[in-house]
Amino acid sequence: MVWSTLAITFAALAPSVRAGITYPDCTNGPLRTNLVCDRTAGSSARAAALVAAMNNNEKLANLIKCVLFTSHLSCSADPRSNSPGVSRLDLAPYQWWNEALHGVAHNRGITWGGQFSAATQFPQAITTAATFDDPLIEQMGTIIGTEARAFANAGRAHLDFWTPNVNPFRDPRWGRGHETPGEDAFRNKKWAEAFIRGMQGPGPSHRVIATCKHYAGYDLENSGSTTRFNFNARISTQDLVEYYLPPFQQCARDSKVGSMMCAYNAVNGVPACADSYMMDTILRKHWNWTDQNQYIVSDCDAVYYLGNANGGHRYKPSYAAAIGASLQAGCDNMCWATPGTTPDPTSAFNQRQFDQRTLDKAMLRLMQGLVNTGYFDGPTGQYRNLSASDVNTQQARHLALRAAEEGIVLLKNDGTLPLTISRSSTQIAMIGFWANAADKMLGGYSGTPPFRHDPVTAARNMGITVNYAPGPLTQSYFDTNQAINAAQRSSIIIFFGGIDNTVEKESQDRTSIAWPAGQLSLLKRLSQMGKPIIVVRMGTHVDDTPLLSMPNVRAILWAGYPGQDGGTAVMNILTGRVSPAGRLPVTVYPSSYTNQAPYTNMALRPSGSYPGRTYRWYNGAVFPFGHGLHYMTFRLDVGEFPTSFAIADVMNSCRGTVTYLDLCPFPPVSVSVTNTGARASDYVLLGFLAGEFGPAPRPIKTLATYTRLADVPPGETKVAKLEWKLESLARVDEKGNRVLYPGTYTLLLDQPTMANVTFRLTGEEVVLDQWPQPPA
Amino acid sequence: MVWSTLAITFAALAPSVRAGITYPDCTNGPLRTNLVCDRTAGSSARAAALVAAMNNNEKLANLIKCVLFTSHLSCSADPRSNSPGVSRLDLAPYQWWNEALHGVAHNRGITWGGQFSAATQFPQAITTAATFDDPLIEQMGTIIGTEARAFANAGRAHLDFWTPNVNPFRDPRWGRGHETPGEDAFRNKKWAEAFIRGMQGPGPSHRVIATCKHYAGYDLENSGSTTRFNFNARISTQDLVEYYLPPFQQCARDSKVGSMMCAYNAVNGVPACADSYMMDTILRKHWNWTDQNQYIVSDCDAVYYLGNANGGHRYKPSYAAAIGASLQAGCDNMCWATPGTTPDPTSAFNQRQFDQRTLDKAMLRLMQGLVNTGYFDGPTGQYRNLSASDVNTQQARHLALRAAEEGIVLLKNDGTLPLTISRSSTQIAMIGFWANAADKMLGGYSGTPPFRHDPVTAARNMGITVNYAPGPLTQSYFDTNQAINAAQRSSIIIFFGGIDNTVEKESQDRTSIAWPAGQLSLLKRLSQMGKPIIVVRMGTHVDDTPLLSMPNVRAILWAGYPGQDGGTAVMNILTGRVSPAGRLPVTVYPSSYTNQAPYTNMALRPSGSYPGRTYRWYNGAVFPFGHGLHYMTFRLDVGEFPTSFAIADVMNSCRGTVTYLDLCPFPPVSVSVTNTGARASDYVLLGFLAGEFGPAPRPIKTLATYTRLADVPPGETKVAKLEWKLESLARVDEKGNRVLYPGTYTLLLDQPTMANVTFRLTGEEVVLDQWPQPPA
Repeated sequence: MVWSTLAITFAALAPSVRAGITYPDCTNGPLRTNLVCDRTAGSSARAAALVAAMNNNEKLANLIKCVLFTSHLSCSADPRSNSPGVSRLDLAPYQWWNEALHGVAHNRGITWGGQFSAATQFPQAITTAATFDDPLIEQMGTIIGTEARAFANAGRAHLDFWTPNVNPFRDPRWGRGHETPGEDAFRNKKWAEAFIRGMQGPGPSHRVIATCKHYAGYDLENSGSTTRFNFNARISTQDLVEYYLPPFQQCARDSKVGSMMCAYNAVNGVPACADSYMMDTILRKHWNWTDQNQYIVSDCDAVYYLGNANGGHRYKPSYAAAIGASLQAGCDNMCWATPGTTPDPTSAFNQRQFDQRTLDKAMLRLMQGLVNTGYFDGPTGQYRNLSASDVNTQQARHLALRAAEEGIVLLKNDGTLPLTISRSSTQIAMIGFWANAADKMLGGYSGTPPFRHDPVTAARNMGITVNYAPGPLTQSYFDTNQAINAAQRSSIIIFFGGIDNTVEKESQDRTSIAWPAGQLSLLKRLSQMGKPIIVVRMGTHVDDTPLLSMPNVRAILWAGYPGQDGGTAVMNILTGRVSPAGRLPVTVYPSSYTNQAPYTNMALRPSGSYPGRTYRWYNGAVFPFGHGLHYMTFRLDVGEFPTSFAIADVMNSCRGTVTYLDLCPFPPVSVSVTNTGARASDYVLLGFLAGEFGPAPRPIKTLATYTRLADVPPGETKVAKLEWKLESLARVDEKGNRVLYPGTYTLLLDQPTMANVTFRLTGEEVVLDQWPQPPA
Repeated sequence: MVWSTLAITFAALAPSVRAGITYPDCTNGPLRTNLVCDRTAGSSARAAALVAAMNNNEKLANLIKCVLFTSHLSCSADPRSNSPGVSRLDLAPYQWWNEALHGVAHNRGITWGGQFSAATQFPQAITTAATFDDPLIEQMGTIIGTEARAFANAGRAHLDFWTPNVNPFRDPRWGRGHETPGEDAFRNKKWAEAFIRGMQGPGPSHRVIATCKHYAGYDLENSGSTTRFNFNARISTQDLVEYYLPPFQQCARDSKVGSMMCAYNAVNGVPACADSYMMDTILRKHWNWTDQNQYIVSDCDAVYYLGNANGGHRYKPSYAAAIGASLQAGCDNMCWATPGTTPDPTSAFNQRQFDQRTLDKAMLRLMQGLVNTGYFDGPTGQYRNLSASDVNTQQARHLALRAAEEGIVLLKNDGTLPLTISRSSTQIAMIGFWANAADKMLGGYSGTPPFRHDPVTAARNMGITVNYAPGPLTQSYFDTNQAINAAQRSSIIIFFGGIDNTVEKESQDRTSIAWPAGQLSLLKRLSQMGKPIIVVRMGTHVDDTPLLSMPNVRAILWAGYPGQDGGTAVMNILTGRVSPAGRLPVTVYPSSYTNQAPYTNMALRPSGSYPGRTYRWYNGAVFPFGHGLHYMTFRLDVGEFPTSFAIADVMNSCRGTVTYLDLCPFPPVSVSVTNTGARASDYVLLGFLAGEFGPAPRPIKTLATYTRLADVPPGETKVAKLEWKLESLARVDEKGNRVLYPGTYTLLLDQPTMANVTFRLTGEEVVLDQWPQPPA
């Protein structure tokens, strides 16, 4: 998808072109006698009846040309870029492209204005992932889905939204890593589970349709001449099942998401949007993602790049062949985004590039998706009463603030934090390009928030005397006099730095993950003044090594992209109104890592000079995955737990309880968490598995379970119950089978490990999931 | 089982005879080379290896004569009443009879004394059921299981306990109704689920083995010449599946309980302990209760009464034939309790009353039960470290108090409660046989508690000036001068009355459910004094009608059997330290009900002059199921909920998520609960389904979902999320199939209804569970 700045431009240019839904008139319109308008029928029968009423020309017109672009990768405000609908049936035009990654966003399908001039903008996924608070993620999903549906009900948006982005954040260079819940497959899976449950609602009807993207192996924008449009990701079956697919399995098999998006890249030679093994054998058949005839949408232009295009895969000799290959492989809806080409499904159909059954099936899936949202249920349908009063509620504002507070990670602290600030006598220097960067806090795919509270604004709202000065981003020359001056007048220096979406963004990966040199120079000068310096780092991660040995840098905080109230959150943490408890959802790599690990190497395991990827395999982190300090200390006491389980008994206890053996619960571990400090704090309890089980090489450790305890009072104890399932104990073999092995398992609690539990599994190994092998 | 008073007597008479387990020596003993001592093997293989090492004489000796009685229905302290074990294999004697209904109890298998002279005694099930707080029930189960295992580890008990009692409380006359969670099948099911999860632990190992009793249709002690030993309960397949079996399905199919007990009575002509349809076709095959080869134990003497005995079923012509019939039908372990007969499994075996396969299978099941508890795991096995320090903990005492407080139900209040008591100037009259009845508060199947706080003791501990006077129970003459005198000196009268375990108990049903006449006479005299009267009613229910029109009876509270700290709980509620929020888990019937409904009629539905049973079918309650007042008012606001679901969509959304369709989640209903009063209070939100779905006659309403909100502050709102599954929407047809029908469903919130949600299910009906038909 294209970057949001362009979308904003177009929305601004063409405010008069409304791009939202018009609900069909099921009472008096031509469909009133069609079964699709009968709320008492099943959604599959309703959609089939609608498709049966359409002729092939109508089907073909609505199948493919879902977006019309006027220039490469920029969305047209021309209403013709919508699917045209079927006027004969009073089926209005529909735009399948709507975005809501962390709040209703600007893009072609959504018309902002009037009572809908703002929507809640939560922190980016990388920041909310750091909360490790899945009930909060579900609440956030509920609010985003509610606001999105309210926009749609007012005719200002449509009913499907291309969110969440759950590709594991494999390499720190990726420009879109901040859109995801981080580097760990299990964390991404759990985040997706909570988000989709919130966004789509408890089912079977959907508040809105969520779309899990990008299926699969997409995590590179550009690396030399390799781009996302032509990259062939070579992924072993083991890595695919173990690392790249778990979030998508969650979306499809377990969360029954309404839609999935196929990616730009190829996997092992086959472009994702033409890969019947991935879309049919795995996604639909192995994961049983067929209960509601859910549909697959292509990323914008992915099918174009299948064809004989410059910079693409050159997988098919013509656009007609590309369209046919994609539909036949299981994609149902194509976002076509290239000017100067005319995607022509009719001629592709006439050339027999795809068949009648495929056409009907794709149309059925799309229409059933709309049926499931209540599109044909009339004005008393579920979710139809959501309106402007459900947008930007007080509850939503509170949650956006809390999400940011919970996601902030304290990387270093020598006791300087929390700050004690006297309003009358303390002056604070707030220095750096992020300090007052209200426009930067949202990150990619954003909408207009009801307000933007940057740190300087938040501090002044608290009555703090602030001496603000700008700082450089990546400029080689920057006048630092203003910064030095502000620091001189202050007793504490808070430096806001790192990177932003001018450095990392969609279509733009980084080549370096070092701190920008100009910022380091300024920090060095400030550090020579002898005053305490707090560094608040924003954006995705850079290597903090230079700061760790820099004198007077007393504390480092990471806030990512903290959303509409991010400045308030940062100030609440700094001043101790809220205690930090977030944990890194990624590894902070040293800057040398980008020289050791070729960006295009998809392997997770180390070999030779290749260092491997993620905390599971890579050993040299600056800050490890799961790192996060508190303002006080905690003590862990592990409850009684068995020392041994016979695998036969474990499997017997699963019988009759679950459809999929990997979802069978394993006995939970109880841990008493005592706050031994002097102030209340949340506490994230992470449980990693390590040990001798399954074939070598074995990972260093693997996140297996976690929970977040809210607000543990000083001196008090709360009991955390760590729930988990067999999936967390299983390993994936080279054929992709998920296997429960005998061996010794140690659950390591917290990062670094503060306590552990060891137990054995005995007996014969058991295959929990037999993986369908790829075509030879 | 026999009543606990006798068991207490025997325990007291023979304190020197220890009746607890001795763990086998798996390091140096003769079993050290047997696979049963190999913790790494599966429990089934371990148990099979042990059974393979036993000869038939050893198997037969350990199979049947599990309890030796010296007189009819009284348990012998003679160690020969234990199963003898196998000395050749160093397998010690074992006693399968241990009780822990609401705390470790007195009976043959348990030796009290030393550090184990007391154990936590929770309220009876009828009182904890009134909490509608399933997390509390789970915690209670955990504590009971922990204390029971600690007794066993110390060689003072064994590893299986005959609890819970989950027969639905069908008729108010039943003497053991207070041992159960009440009259509703769904409530009993949920109570059992929580209790077993706590008691057995999260699995696959068992803290102790729980035993769900009595399977099935047992809810009558005696009615004229009909006794539990010869009663043939005639139950339609529809009533059986809909009402009598759901708790047992929960135990077996879903909670995978370690053991079940077959009942005394017959169902439709076949005594329960000889019924292969019930024990094999339903329990083991249809409910898949075979994953751990779980065993069935007979109630004590149930097999004896199968034979040609006076007062029994006369189902078989000899005890040998009775033994054979029971084993062949699926019972594995028999409690034989009749003196003067010599149960002789060897001769039954030689007569081919049961076969080798049956013998081996029963022994395997029993031994695997012990393997599952870690009996053969050596001193480092799970749960082996539980000791005296885990008994009567502070946490357990708190929970016993809280369970009583949460279970107390406010039946009537004109605003007099909570009482404002000035310690210096207010004198309170506490009158009645229950007021200081420390010995009565525990109810049937009790052990020795660490203390017994009756109401008078609790009030005096609070510094209240109490004028105590006794009152009658069922005496026709009672001197009331003392009571009148106490009332004259006091400004408030609290009357403690109702019935106790001398009126209702095991082997003794009631014939009347009216308030005892002598107590009413005294109450009338007190009411003429013009002082406010609070009635605290204990025991199971009597008809409160006379009190509702009696002048000056300002409030009525029901506390059941509130356990070791029940008096404190009552006083905390009366004085407003704790707000009442319990709800009746039974219907309070008018006393005329016992004339209208023949006790032996098992039908639930009304017909002709037969009034039907439970709140689902009976319309004339004094206080209905679910009734319970508060000290303040609540407002309910129901969240958005769909108005219609197509059954096809609902079923599609289940696909791949559950093994059993009745366990498929249905979308939850969110309800905002606002405390509009001036003090904090818990709030139980009950959701009943009513409407037009499934065949007539239709129930008035049916409990479908509930939750308990803790501590809603005054003026504040908490959101209750009512979770439910398709089981709650389904009805049972005449063949016993559980069916999801199209129709109009209304969820009625609270009792009486304060809000409701109506939705439709549309499309074709779906069978969620196809019931195996009984033999013709």
